[in-house]
Amino acid sequence: MTRGRFISFEGGEGAGKSTQVQRLAARLKGGGREVVTTREPGGSPGAESIRDIVLRGEADRWSPTTETLLMYAARRDHIERVIRPALTRGAWVICDRFADSTRAYQGAAGGVDPRFITALETFILEDTRPDLTLVFDLPADVGLERAHARAGAEMRFESKGMAFHERLRDGFRAIAASEPERCALIDATGSIAEVEAAVWAAVEARLAVHG
Amino acid sequence: MTRGRFISFEGGEGAGKSTQVQRLAARLKGGGREVVTTREPGGSPGAESIRDIVLRGEADRWSPTTETLLMYAARRDHIERVIRPALTRGAWVICDRFADSTRAYQGAAGGVDPRFITALETFILEDTRPDLTLVFDLPADVGLERAHARAGAEMRFESKGMAFHERLRDGFRAIAASEPERCALIDATGSIAEVEAAVWAAVEARLAVHG
Repeated sequence: MTRGRFISFEGGEGAGKSTQVQRLAARLKGGGREVVTTREPGGSPGAESIRDIVLRGEADRWSPTTETLLMYAARRDHIERVIRPALTRGAWVICDRFADSTRAYQGAAGGVDPRFITALETFILEDTRPDLTLVFDLPADVGLERAHARAGAEMRFESKGMAFHERLRDGFRAIAASEPERCALIDATGSIAEVEAAVWAAVEARLAVHG
Repeated sequence: MTRGRFISFEGGEGAGKSTQVQRLAARLKGGGREVVTTREPGGSPGAESIRDIVLRGEADRWSPTTETLLMYAARRDHIERVIRPALTRGAWVICDRFADSTRAYQGAAGGVDPRFITALETFILEDTRPDLTLVFDLPADVGLERAHARAGAEMRFESKGMAFHERLRDGFRAIAASEPERCALIDATGSIAEVEAAVWAAVEARLAVHG
């Protein structure tokens, strides 16, 4: 059994990641593959219980540093109980947010020392790293407007103001630029069908899949 | 205003730390000092909510690595909201368990890479380190027997077996041996009055306090 493939979707608020995760999963399943769709923070029972305490309450309930540790605690549980077992049995794993979200939200936008985030990636991710990361990019004001229009959206980061969301976008773009082998920057301003086509083009080109 | 003093109590199960924290606090308060007694995991509202999910459920609900991250998330919140502000205003802080418990429980006994724990100490504790650590030492079987006899005791680690508790004791002894300037090994097999006298002797000698 060969190891499966690991694809993460990243980007700011209102970028349309969740819709595209489902579209890509359906297309890959149509090709007869086992596909596991999951999300962070959360994705395993333990990680979901951590998600509950991270997202509950005021936006400043936790400092960015404490939030980083909680995100990585949830991520470690998710890796151990869901992602690694799925990859080992040959499944494709598609994850809505992964380690780059910590680097962008708590790091670039929140001010946490990038050297600390690198240490966490080394010791906690180990070799469980995405084969392909789709970084959804759109202007911060467009994303916030979309997120705002969405029923039941998680509004915790919305209160942080436009400067935060500009730093967030810059953070994600910097990650994509610094790891071009792993990351594909996806223009998320287009229609759902246009973005779906861009995602599929990246998956075909980077992971050599067809149909 | 000079910075206060920070004293941590460490050791395995049933060592009698909590009783001695209260005795030492009373004695220091008698000398007119502001004393803050606290504990880990917990000690701040956020850290207590993390404690709830760490200690809830089966002993193997979390891997030692995930547990390390949760403990450090709680510790960071506790440092930011309670310990650092108290030290800044000149108070004495006495904490029932601190960073050495992670090194002993999750590290020495649980197998977590000590280099990762060192990275956490560097980035998360920063300069908030105890001036004095009292390491309560007693044979693992005696401690477990005492803990077992105590009503309402936290029994989560008891199920891990004697080998775990032997590694735990060795871990604490190794910490005390490697940092003799900061740590005092306290023989916890004696009576409450004997241990109280040993604690006070260490505080007088190491922190130059009287009365």
